[in-house]
Amino acid sequence: MAKVLTSRRENYAQWYNDLVIKAGLAENSAVRGCMVIKPYGYAIWEKMQRALDDMFKETGHQNAYFPLFIPKSFFSREAAHVEGFAKECAVVTHYRLKNSADGKGVEVDPEARLEEEYIVRPTSETIIWDTYKNWIQSYRDLPLKINQWANVVRWEMRTRLFLRTTEFLWQEGHTAHATKEEAIEEAETILRVYADFAQNWMAMPVLQGYKTPSERFAGAVETLTIEALMQDGKALQSGTSHFLGQNFAKVFDVKFASKEGVEEYVWATSWGVSTRLMGALVMSHSDDHGLVLPPKLAPIQVVIVPIYKKEEELTQIVEMADKIASRLKHLGISVKVDDDDNRKPGWKFAQYELQGVPVRLAIGPRDLENQTVELARRDTLTKEVLPAAGIEEHIKKLLDEIQTSIFQRALSFRRENTHKADSYEEFRNILNEKGGFILAHWDGTDETELKIKEETKATIRCILLDGDDEAGKCMVTGKPSERRVVFARAY
Amino acid sequence: MAKVLTSRRENYAQWYNDLVIKAGLAENSAVRGCMVIKPYGYAIWEKMQRALDDMFKETGHQNAYFPLFIPKSFFSREAAHVEGFAKECAVVTHYRLKNSADGKGVEVDPEARLEEEYIVRPTSETIIWDTYKNWIQSYRDLPLKINQWANVVRWEMRTRLFLRTTEFLWQEGHTAHATKEEAIEEAETILRVYADFAQNWMAMPVLQGYKTPSERFAGAVETLTIEALMQDGKALQSGTSHFLGQNFAKVFDVKFASKEGVEEYVWATSWGVSTRLMGALVMSHSDDHGLVLPPKLAPIQVVIVPIYKKEEELTQIVEMADKIASRLKHLGISVKVDDDDNRKPGWKFAQYELQGVPVRLAIGPRDLENQTVELARRDTLTKEVLPAAGIEEHIKKLLDEIQTSIFQRALSFRRENTHKADSYEEFRNILNEKGGFILAHWDGTDETELKIKEETKATIRCILLDGDDEAGKCMVTGKPSERRVVFARAY
Repeated sequence: MAKVLTSRRENYAQWYNDLVIKAGLAENSAVRGCMVIKPYGYAIWEKMQRALDDMFKETGHQNAYFPLFIPKSFFSREAAHVEGFAKECAVVTHYRLKNSADGKGVEVDPEARLEEEYIVRPTSETIIWDTYKNWIQSYRDLPLKINQWANVVRWEMRTRLFLRTTEFLWQEGHTAHATKEEAIEEAETILRVYADFAQNWMAMPVLQGYKTPSERFAGAVETLTIEALMQDGKALQSGTSHFLGQNFAKVFDVKFASKEGVEEYVWATSWGVSTRLMGALVMSHSDDHGLVLPPKLAPIQVVIVPIYKKEEELTQIVEMADKIASRLKHLGISVKVDDDDNRKPGWKFAQYELQGVPVRLAIGPRDLENQTVELARRDTLTKEVLPAAGIEEHIKKLLDEIQTSIFQRALSFRRENTHKADSYEEFRNILNEKGGFILAHWDGTDETELKIKEETKATIRCILLDGDDEAGKCMVTGKPSERRVVFARAY
Repeated sequence: MAKVLTSRRENYAQWYNDLVIKAGLAENSAVRGCMVIKPYGYAIWEKMQRALDDMFKETGHQNAYFPLFIPKSFFSREAAHVEGFAKECAVVTHYRLKNSADGKGVEVDPEARLEEEYIVRPTSETIIWDTYKNWIQSYRDLPLKINQWANVVRWEMRTRLFLRTTEFLWQEGHTAHATKEEAIEEAETILRVYADFAQNWMAMPVLQGYKTPSERFAGAVETLTIEALMQDGKALQSGTSHFLGQNFAKVFDVKFASKEGVEEYVWATSWGVSTRLMGALVMSHSDDHGLVLPPKLAPIQVVIVPIYKKEEELTQIVEMADKIASRLKHLGISVKVDDDDNRKPGWKFAQYELQGVPVRLAIGPRDLENQTVELARRDTLTKEVLPAAGIEEHIKKLLDEIQTSIFQRALSFRRENTHKADSYEEFRNILNEKGGFILAHWDGTDETELKIKEETKATIRCILLDGDDEAGKCMVTGKPSERRVVFARAY
């Protein structure tokens, strides 16, 4: 069997790109920087969406939908927001095409120029807060807790499938509250939801913390983040939740009458995760053979491959396979019996390894005779022969075990790749030799943060929510530091 | 209680618009022709999506996602397609904004002009067939049955909430097949799925048939349609399924090697339904009090309103309401207990009538004493007092009964408003006096169809799939006609 993927050791970036394409997750499109999410990749994304959506609803959120376009002038209103966004974005200037003079194609009709240009949303705070102005008058209208599943566009110069694309899919939550405390609590609740999802569905351990001022979302008072560690030792910001203070309420003049009849500005949050999570999922667990998917997000959890020489063997084996499949489905497990006779078992084995199907059963003539199956685990690449009777209950438990085991492996990896550094030299050595997360002291200034970034390409990923308050001295300036912060090179 | 809605008799169009806004389904946005779908409206749309998505998957389709943008040149390739589309659409010409010279806002950066403009997709045949070219080589790659849930943009001059908006949400299926027969069968299968969904979920009877050549989708060989009748006697095209022949395959050069090793062009279908269905749902069943929702699509199926004077009554009544609610939830029924003490019961009754909650329970002090509830049906506006014991089983059956009853009422309405016309004069009389569907003979020419449209504003909605093959003479020209076709004025 020819090697399908570049190995991680050889070229990690190439391995990632190969894997995304060859496992059928996504590919580049004819439109610069935009991807096509292929059926297998989209099936994983749908599972993510469903799980997150249920969690949002359980915490009192409702979905809604706001326009794709945002009038250009809306961006000018929030100064910090326009600085951080709205520069590299898709601008709609015309609303009509006409036949070309040469009769061979179409061209933009110069007479159909918009009076005010529209921006394809890079994020929706402005259009949503312009709408909230009409929805919120009294404390009775609060809290307003809305989420939107949508596509957004940010004109990126360098793109990578899932990790950074011009168009991507995401959810964006936008909530309005009567008090500062309630808004902060909302931002924290959502961070916990994101961490819960990352750890319990994606099997991906994450650090939870605050961003430094220079890394905050444009227009936010505080940005909370979950940060995951990829196998190449680089961090990946996987979700953010912002406390926006009263910034957007003031700009869009959204006030409410309190119970006491006093007019006050509303407090806000916004938060989002995107198809970037697909990239995080791939890079957290997969190996040189292909994807490793946590069972909870695997579109196919079990595949059954018949192995046979004669046609009559196939019939009997498929019959046995179908029986097992039906019992597995009865337990809520998604299963595929691959009886395609155009492909050899070896080809199928490689294919399902590439696609990260958690459990593979092979059934051959001897298994038929002995009523056994050969079970292979994708995460450990181990195999064993087991009795067919009761295999479904065994697999049900095994899927839970795999889910936990994948998480534990990622957690061990993170532990092994999290270090403390007490001097700038030590910091640089760790960064260059090992990578990973580095806990170090920092004096709290933008200047030092920027100096470190310029000199080492490492950024402060977060100030941990549950970090030790161990005081010390900044590794660069020697000035006092209240606690260590988390550094890494990042995607 | 002030009258909330304009009555249907007074002004049907105004009634519709009032209802959509006041029931909290949608509203106009700051972006011309684009709507905001509000949480209550979006919750109904989500139920529609879920039901349709399950049906697509059961019939062997997978979801995927293709880019929002389409290079302008793609539209020039399929001549019929560009004639029918691509003229009134949003054109992206630039990819960057910059700060204005006056420092007060942002403006389009003239240096960031795209070499080739992008069109915001009005439909995705072109970009998808450009992609399929790489996915299809052999008969083994067929059939390819893919669906996409997406937003699309068509620059409409006159817009109406849900019925015709510049941006709307929809699903678009795009399938590729080895044979003409299989593609036609696919288009027909999807039409049946749409009809099944319309009738069994939306409780909306639909006619199924072929469009005439002049009403076909741009680029299609045949267009199949489902047509519903609204309460004002106008038809609403609710979903279409197109057999595209080999048109797109030829334009995008998509060939496959058959089992016999012969290279052939692929056969195609495409099909879609959109948020327009929300408009159809509203106009099929609702009345002057507000929405009437079929239970299967109602976000809240049962609301319980406590009626009380003293505070201690409230506690006991809410306790009883919660018990009933919990038993209803156990049966999979969505229920809300509205114990908000800021609103009077009368206000709540009107509100839930407006929002079309199928079943309302009211519990007052006497009910508490007698262990009864007052049950009101939204569709018939009837009330009865029933024992609280076993009420959940009663409601479960009642919801099914309401679902059927709403459908039957709409079906009766359609029967009463479907007429045969044997002369052009009779046709015009029925159209002007009663509206509705009119079955009449037509000579099969574009000219006659156009003449009728210009003179009466009625169009041929479809040539019925299961119509009688009763020959006759065209009501306008007297030329022979093989069967009657269905005319109506339409949305």
